[in-house]
Amino acid sequence: MAHPPKAAFLEQLEADFPDGFLSQDPAELAEYGRDWTRVHAPAPSAVALPRNTDEVARFLRACHEAGVAVVPSGGRTGLAGGAMAKDGEIVLSLSRMRAIGEVDLLGSTVRVQAGAVTEAVHRHCEPLGLTWPVDFASKGSSTVGGNIATNAGGVKVIRYGLTRNWVLGLQVVTARGDVMELNGALEKNNTGVDLRQLFIGSEGILGVITEATLKLARLPARQSVFLFAVDDVAAVLRLFRDARKAPITIAAFEFFTDRCLARVQRHRKVRTPFEADYPTYALLEVEDTDEAALEGWLASLFERELIRDGALAQSATQAAELWTLREGISESLSATGLPHKNDIALPVAALESFCSELDALFGARYPGWEICLFGHIGDGNLHVNVMKPDTMEKADFLKQTSASDHAMFTLVQKHGGSISAEHGIGLLKKPYLGYSRTAEEIAVIRGLKAVLDPAGILNPGKILD
Amino acid sequence: MAHPPKAAFLEQLEADFPDGFLSQDPAELAEYGRDWTRVHAPAPSAVALPRNTDEVARFLRACHEAGVAVVPSGGRTGLAGGAMAKDGEIVLSLSRMRAIGEVDLLGSTVRVQAGAVTEAVHRHCEPLGLTWPVDFASKGSSTVGGNIATNAGGVKVIRYGLTRNWVLGLQVVTARGDVMELNGALEKNNTGVDLRQLFIGSEGILGVITEATLKLARLPARQSVFLFAVDDVAAVLRLFRDARKAPITIAAFEFFTDRCLARVQRHRKVRTPFEADYPTYALLEVEDTDEAALEGWLASLFERELIRDGALAQSATQAAELWTLREGISESLSATGLPHKNDIALPVAALESFCSELDALFGARYPGWEICLFGHIGDGNLHVNVMKPDTMEKADFLKQTSASDHAMFTLVQKHGGSISAEHGIGLLKKPYLGYSRTAEEIAVIRGLKAVLDPAGILNPGKILD
Repeated sequence: MAHPPKAAFLEQLEADFPDGFLSQDPAELAEYGRDWTRVHAPAPSAVALPRNTDEVARFLRACHEAGVAVVPSGGRTGLAGGAMAKDGEIVLSLSRMRAIGEVDLLGSTVRVQAGAVTEAVHRHCEPLGLTWPVDFASKGSSTVGGNIATNAGGVKVIRYGLTRNWVLGLQVVTARGDVMELNGALEKNNTGVDLRQLFIGSEGILGVITEATLKLARLPARQSVFLFAVDDVAAVLRLFRDARKAPITIAAFEFFTDRCLARVQRHRKVRTPFEADYPTYALLEVEDTDEAALEGWLASLFERELIRDGALAQSATQAAELWTLREGISESLSATGLPHKNDIALPVAALESFCSELDALFGARYPGWEICLFGHIGDGNLHVNVMKPDTMEKADFLKQTSASDHAMFTLVQKHGGSISAEHGIGLLKKPYLGYSRTAEEIAVIRGLKAVLDPAGILNPGKILD
Repeated sequence: MAHPPKAAFLEQLEADFPDGFLSQDPAELAEYGRDWTRVHAPAPSAVALPRNTDEVARFLRACHEAGVAVVPSGGRTGLAGGAMAKDGEIVLSLSRMRAIGEVDLLGSTVRVQAGAVTEAVHRHCEPLGLTWPVDFASKGSSTVGGNIATNAGGVKVIRYGLTRNWVLGLQVVTARGDVMELNGALEKNNTGVDLRQLFIGSEGILGVITEATLKLARLPARQSVFLFAVDDVAAVLRLFRDARKAPITIAAFEFFTDRCLARVQRHRKVRTPFEADYPTYALLEVEDTDEAALEGWLASLFERELIRDGALAQSATQAAELWTLREGISESLSATGLPHKNDIALPVAALESFCSELDALFGARYPGWEICLFGHIGDGNLHVNVMKPDTMEKADFLKQTSASDHAMFTLVQKHGGSISAEHGIGLLKKPYLGYSRTAEEIAVIRGLKAVLDPAGILNPGKILD
């Protein structure tokens, strides 16, 4: 299997590549060696910073021949440790490859390098009335390559689907250093197995994404953002079922509990538009919806007692404030305590029974603990955060949450769910992969890995041992 | 490599499976052994007609152990020979597995067996205000399993994307007879490589799809269908560019030339809503669009001379009549002559220059011949049909078109296009695969095939030799 580079290998890289290609600066090793997780310590041997695809290809060819372990690296905003370099690997950072090409208005596409930051792509396209509809809280740091390699989700999946849907072409460098141009700028192309799909969501174990042709969506002409107060998760689901049938175009349907709100309020000094406090909240964004139809539906929500209160943002500022209540949660939990994070998905139809069984499980496992539930409930995606009790030692906490994870994932498996909806597997969820994938599936993934990366140099230890 | 079954193998199948599982009736061999292509003669050894997944698994395990070649078979409406059994294979027909489950209204999904007919799924979901938005002329015969195995396209791709986007879960039986349940009913599930994507569009060479959980879309509340008359393909593209920016939701944007129309009129006795004849036509369908905005845009098309004439269907019957002008083309070409068919795609931005180069090429190669161009131009997808001149022998015609295909595909390759947009590769496009896929890509596909089907029993000779 792949191993850390020897000193001579690094010297040869220094000789073969331009100045500044390789860094061994301790501050850079610490920075590039980790993502947003804080479980493992970063310990890469070096950071490679190519400026173009040819350098990526030459670098990987050298690593393949020498059997040197490589960690492909984007914006490092991952939450599963997929971009951690903890075992002396060389980090291959795409951060210098961030060019964004001219928007093709006829095809509604744009070609970008993998290191382009998500939000920079949004800003590039917005003046033309277009957007790349991949949108989440870390968009200011995450990169296109990382988004594609993790098939990123986010707040607009219910409307636009996952990142996979918004990638037309991929330029991928294989572990052997071959450059593959997959699918170009084509909307339709049925010429044998679509290899592009293999790399999307493969967390860097099959190849390195260097460029992409992104498919763009038209920006909506009008958006409306609502906050609703309801009694519990079951009420959120009743509201969702109703919204699905209403004459509206749902762009986002999110929820959070009062405990999440309390943490956000402690950290961010925000407030809800309501006079009273409620147990559970739903955030709805609609796009380009007929106003009369929308108003009729809203009025009926009160009449039919589907909500206890509701508020419409009257301005872009108010809309942003409502979104802060939801998008500020993850940051606020980490700023005000130590959350143990999980990111699970269920079939939408199974959510209600799952949530009540989860309540019972947590009541037994974590009596009196603070559990913060939020997420993209319209997609069946729940973020489950267990907060460390102030009086408990961290080691005890981690031991207890790890044991409870097995119990929760057993429940997830029973309901046909996923142990990782959008965060991926990386290092942190690897011990639990068997709850979502069978031995046969894992054997096939190993087989694919052996085809594409026979020396096993790409992101070793991620997803699979 | 895999081979036809010996007599003893077929006898053992007869013994191991229920009565009627295996047919060797000559009429059934002829019927199940071919698809809509008429290039090769059907010659299967037998037809296997399983009633459930367990029978599929047991059958494939037996074939894998004996090295017997199998052709997976759906509605056999393919146009690339992907479902032809011309070399003594056993056809594995999913035609008895056509159950359609109850629609899950909360998740907007439905579970179906692979043999369910596309239109039957539409009819099943329509009363609930939902549809599986995979729609094309052969929907009355094509099956869900075949649609998925070929990642079918059609007339609504511009609005809804390819079949790939509308498949949540797949049940696949591998060549070894293992049953894999991939992704269940999950919208979000990032737990390692998404194997489901491998099987979508793989034309039966990697596994056999037995069931699927389909994602459903809401039926639009209103649709409007327009026919526009313009001067040439360049004018169609100008109109398309304008429509992309207009305040409308495009559900379909199709085009055809006067030669296609003439063939449809010869076969179907239909007429356009226009007084005069024009060189080129565009068909536009819009969904749920604000009427005032739509009318304003339409008026501006005349003012800005983007169209020479235009007509809006005033009823569902008229809309169907306009659609017949477009959807009747393929059938009318075959009924009134012998077309040599190609199905190519270009990046939308490259269409205009490609089309003018194609004109020049065809002018030189096919002087005075009848070329019928039509297709899903909004997706960059052109159907290029060369009609056999009445005075030419068929053998001469095929020889000449084959040579010209190489010239056309060279042009396609130059513009970054695809030699098969939605028909797939099968047998008929296999000699040309290299125009769309590199040697490295083909080597990777061979590697994947070896992982999933080491004995090479599944659809041998399709896509790859």
